[in-house]
Amino acid sequence: MVVVMSPDATDEEVAHVVERVEAVGGEAFVSKGLVRTIIGLVGDIDSFHHLNLRTLPGVADVHRISDPYKLVSRQHHSERSTVWVGPAGHQVPIGPDTFTLLAGPCAVETPEQTLAAARMAQSAGATLLRGGAFKPRTSPYAFQGLGVRGLEILAATREATGLPVVTEVVDARDVAVVAEHADMLQVGTRNMANFGLLQAVGEAGKPVMLKRGMTATIEEWLMAAEYVAQRGNLDVVLCERGIRTFEPATRNTLDVSAVPVVQATSHLPVIVDPSHAAGRKDLVVPLSRAAIAVGADGVIVDVHPDPETALCDGPQALDGPALRELASVCRRLPPVLGRADAADHVRRG
Amino acid sequence: MVVVMSPDATDEEVAHVVERVEAVGGEAFVSKGLVRTIIGLVGDIDSFHHLNLRTLPGVADVHRISDPYKLVSRQHHSERSTVWVGPAGHQVPIGPDTFTLLAGPCAVETPEQTLAAARMAQSAGATLLRGGAFKPRTSPYAFQGLGVRGLEILAATREATGLPVVTEVVDARDVAVVAEHADMLQVGTRNMANFGLLQAVGEAGKPVMLKRGMTATIEEWLMAAEYVAQRGNLDVVLCERGIRTFEPATRNTLDVSAVPVVQATSHLPVIVDPSHAAGRKDLVVPLSRAAIAVGADGVIVDVHPDPETALCDGPQALDGPALRELASVCRRLPPVLGRADAADHVRRG
Amino acid sequence: MVVVMSPDATDEEVAHVVERVEAVGGEAFVSKGLVRTIIGLVGDIDSFHHLNLRTLPGVADVHRISDPYKLVSRQHHSERSTVWVGPAGHQVPIGPDTFTLLAGPCAVETPEQTLAAARMAQSAGATLLRGGAFKPRTSPYAFQGLGVRGLEILAATREATGLPVVTEVVDARDVAVVAEHADMLQVGTRNMANFGLLQAVGEAGKPVMLKRGMTATIEEWLMAAEYVAQRGNLDVVLCERGIRTFEPATRNTLDVSAVPVVQATSHLPVIVDPSHAAGRKDLVVPLSRAAIAVGADGVIVDVHPDPETALCDGPQALDGPALRELASVCRRLPPVLGRADAADHVRRG
Amino acid sequence: MVVVMSPDATDEEVAHVVERVEAVGGEAFVSKGLVRTIIGLVGDIDSFHHLNLRTLPGVADVHRISDPYKLVSRQHHSERSTVWVGPAGHQVPIGPDTFTLLAGPCAVETPEQTLAAARMAQSAGATLLRGGAFKPRTSPYAFQGLGVRGLEILAATREATGLPVVTEVVDARDVAVVAEHADMLQVGTRNMANFGLLQAVGEAGKPVMLKRGMTATIEEWLMAAEYVAQRGNLDVVLCERGIRTFEPATRNTLDVSAVPVVQATSHLPVIVDPSHAAGRKDLVVPLSRAAIAVGADGVIVDVHPDPETALCDGPQALDGPALRELASVCRRLPPVLGRADAADHVRRG
Repeated sequence: MVVVMSPDATDEEVAHVVERVEAVGGEAFVSKGLVRTIIGLVGDIDSFHHLNLRTLPGVADVHRISDPYKLVSRQHHSERSTVWVGPAGHQVPIGPDTFTLLAGPCAVETPEQTLAAARMAQSAGATLLRGGAFKPRTSPYAFQGLGVRGLEILAATREATGLPVVTEVVDARDVAVVAEHADMLQVGTRNMANFGLLQAVGEAGKPVMLKRGMTATIEEWLMAAEYVAQRGNLDVVLCERGIRTFEPATRNTLDVSAVPVVQATSHLPVIVDPSHAAGRKDLVVPLSRAAIAVGADGVIVDVHPDPETALCDGPQALDGPALRELASVCRRLPPVLGRADAADHVRRG
Repeated sequence: MVVVMSPDATDEEVAHVVERVEAVGGEAFVSKGLVRTIIGLVGDIDSFHHLNLRTLPGVADVHRISDPYKLVSRQHHSERSTVWVGPAGHQVPIGPDTFTLLAGPCAVETPEQTLAAARMAQSAGATLLRGGAFKPRTSPYAFQGLGVRGLEILAATREATGLPVVTEVVDARDVAVVAEHADMLQVGTRNMANFGLLQAVGEAGKPVMLKRGMTATIEEWLMAAEYVAQRGNLDVVLCERGIRTFEPATRNTLDVSAVPVVQATSHLPVIVDPSHAAGRKDLVVPLSRAAIAVGADGVIVDVHPDPETALCDGPQALDGPALRELASVCRRLPPVLGRADAADHVRRG
Repeated sequence: MVVVMSPDATDEEVAHVVERVEAVGGEAFVSKGLVRTIIGLVGDIDSFHHLNLRTLPGVADVHRISDPYKLVSRQHHSERSTVWVGPAGHQVPIGPDTFTLLAGPCAVETPEQTLAAARMAQSAGATLLRGGAFKPRTSPYAFQGLGVRGLEILAATREATGLPVVTEVVDARDVAVVAEHADMLQVGTRNMANFGLLQAVGEAGKPVMLKRGMTATIEEWLMAAEYVAQRGNLDVVLCERGIRTFEPATRNTLDVSAVPVVQATSHLPVIVDPSHAAGRKDLVVPLSRAAIAVGADGVIVDVHPDPETALCDGPQALDGPALRELASVCRRLPPVLGRADAADHVRRG
Repeated sequence: MVVVMSPDATDEEVAHVVERVEAVGGEAFVSKGLVRTIIGLVGDIDSFHHLNLRTLPGVADVHRISDPYKLVSRQHHSERSTVWVGPAGHQVPIGPDTFTLLAGPCAVETPEQTLAAARMAQSAGATLLRGGAFKPRTSPYAFQGLGVRGLEILAATREATGLPVVTEVVDARDVAVVAEHADMLQVGTRNMANFGLLQAVGEAGKPVMLKRGMTATIEEWLMAAEYVAQRGNLDVVLCERGIRTFEPATRNTLDVSAVPVVQATSHLPVIVDPSHAAGRKDLVVPLSRAAIAVGADGVIVDVHPDPETALCDGPQALDGPALRELASVCRRLPPVLGRADAADHVRRG
């Protein structure tokens, strides 16, 4: 931490800062410049937070130097992690050595539609099934998902296809029932800062997929992962899904740079959701190519057997030719980047 | 709703759109232009949403024309509303005719600190006490609030000062206990799209203060209010608290325009939180002046008897001279704009 | 300046940084922390820029501590400045003690329309006339202004009304002719970073109104003012006109916080343009109130005798009742904030 | 164009809109809904702009339906274009069938540094040399480029290496001299809306590379290209270089989605600048991979023989191993996407 004094700060004010830092066991190095004095702090950063240094007289600014996250950082865990998803005997990897395709319907509507979408996903090379039973919707008048009935349909679809299931949980009160049916719990973009929910999924004993808040910085996103990790669960996969910007041509702006930025600072796997980022079917394949090429550990897309009748996000769901093109991309591109197909590395022991 | 066909759409594709609209009981008016055809839809807009018009062949775009909110709209409720906060016999108004100052500590720390802050608030003219017992924090290592003990301190402080209490609830599971102790439930910026929480506070029987999500559009904010209203609770006060922009000089950018924009489309009262918007004590008074002048129905600020030792957001808490200046502003400015002091309109019947 | 070394930086890498800093005559204070080493630099900051410290091995980050602007800073010029606009014998102040209303048509269309708008402006209390002869337009097919003919109309209108004229210059090649006809040169939002133009107006011998780039940080805006000042012209008035955000309800988001932020760091006057920020006539009066209340040194608005036929930005131009309301606000509100009417302080010597 | 009337608009107000539209030769189709009336306009859209429909009584909103650009649109020019850069006898393509690497130093400093950087670029597979002689800098105290001397160095480097030269022009007054020395004129991000400059390069007879304004929408960017095209120059290459968002981990956020969005609506080639987007050397290679994979027609990067001593943007310049990695990516990835190396398609006739 660095404390920057204002140009007119007095020696007493500088001494007061030093004194407060030393009172909590820290060290303070004073550098007097021509115009300003700066003070470098050494010691336990958490103890400094309680000092409210920014409120002290003469202080102009306080810069944090270290990253605020610990458990998810590469600093003490330099190897990138692999998260395994699925029941014992059929665990699919998401990590640095493989490429994983996750696909399925935005919302579970009927057993037939879900099974058809799962078959589509599987034929395109997906090894994990996504599908929403609890849907957070901007309007209270929009379809809110089938709830527990949707979870049952997802579980039945897993039985029929062998695909482990990823589904969203939107309320801490539902974590237990979702964890009972699903193989991986998704925390959505609107709930990234729902700290009670993060703590609840951290204790649920299943891997977690944590979507980036549509307006969260990468640091805030990693702090949200830290909330999960702090409850003992390090099986967290991050999912970039676009951020809110001024550009109206796409629903959100896919921040592909976030993938290498995260990989440089955190050991957690990171995947990309081009469907929700763009909100346009015609961009899903090009953005999937970009995601694979930038180094994402996986891609998650919406598919629907009949987008025209989809109850949620039909305009972005892939079908027919677009899905075949995506399948081709997912087969050809990852090997060029040195990644194996996750399907060939399922843990069946 | 207006459907815009792409320039190369065929007559069959236009006919297909018309057919789908009529199948759900709507009317479709076709306007053939030189380059494009546009189709105006008339009828029940909710039934059109399920048509996924955007996925139909030949459709380039779909524009929504009407506002998606109903209960909170001025369309069928043209008078602006007043929300009354407090126990029977001491209800403080927030509405179009008065100006209400809400003040108190960001976080409840001790009975003494809370009482001192409440006395400061009261001496500055505040008629409602704010204070946090459950604190959503970006870091799991930061102070998370005293929880139920904090609620008890707030209730005791109300006994001592007579000020009704506004406090945040961050988890649907806590709504009952918070509603038991507080006079108004606050939903914070990070939870604006936590739909389960919105529904729970909608059923709690207490007025709600709904902060704008720091990256929510005004329409999304009003839709969040609609979630509360839909559960039968129209006693919602909106609170603008700054939005996330590229400007780093302030923590967020206070969007004062949101006040008249909301007032033009919704009957709900709207107040402003300059403390959290700016994150800087020196801006709280000027931004409070701007908020009053633009037409806000109230202002909510952080005060702390000793900002240097505050456990949360010390740098933005007012004390001493700044608080006196705020008090002077709140006395002098609202009358120029035709507003009475809420203190003179407490409902004591 | 503070150099933050990465956690695994070696002693040699630290020594290399120190060496480079000392080679250009600076001093380097090394603080070794538990995890990282930080190095505080003291000396001539401009010489440090050429060192490319960020590229040196072992360097994680470099934080600038001081403000990069000099001539426009309050650091060595703590009194806030007043800029005087107009010919000798009729100079209107824009500064900390007065409130100045600038008004006129967005675009000069005809002598009659310009004169009518100027009379409207004058009757509302404006002491300076704004009007565009050179118009920067997003579309090459939109009305681009009357050019030199427009300047002549403005000059004739000044003769008729006595109001000094503010008009935009969009091209460095036009600075001379604009300076010949106008009393103040406006640099528009799209040209805030047109450095050649900034230098040209810096040498033109007339006061400058510098609008904030719609996506410029406050620091970048002050650096643009520094470009003008560096050419010997300190008569610069800053104008906040809204920044680009994700909110679609207004054309831009008026950043009222920018006013006190600028006033805290720069001695230059700062005014507000609510017309272009909002792009909506119904918000101009409330936002003008907010601008005055937050402490702006003036407000600039669009007026038009017949908005329906305006060739540019008709939807935001004030007329009739709205203009009378604005006049009333400009009379009543500034005195509450301790400001005199600029009309009473015109320098006529 | 669609005019949306407010819910309380009268029949007279509707009739008034229709009348105004018909007065300029347009047709107006009225659709009366349950709540609102909407009016679809058919005819010459430019004539409607002058009507100021938004200011008419009873009008709530006006939606534009068609794209505002014409010459750069694919609507009447459905084949994507190739732009050829270089002197007769050595013209390098940028277009849909090839992949073009442009590389060179951010700023021209000396003949030796420029030649060394050009050799690096060439060895990495670049077929066009970039280099800045006129540098727009945020600070008036930063290195502003060598000007005409820099142009001469670039021309000499072209002699030595055979690489055609791309260089930025920042002022309309410099267009002639830059066009004399360079093979392609670059308009930088800060000048994207400098309409006088756009018109000047449109008349200079050389291909133009138009960078996206860092806060410009894709539509505004295409309108800027329309300004160039309108002066008779359709040899415009668009360059995505990152947009300003709230994320601080990268200097700007590279908007890879812009590539397929532009390609869907405009026939102009589009390339990507990952160096300026990220501002970090470690992201240049991953973002180049993403750019190629998403479908960019080329990539432009900064290289420097000695980044530590670079006078401009040293932290993002590639050297040694990173450059070799980029070269390998540019060799292996484009063929997977069906693109040939531009080097194999130089036009030498």
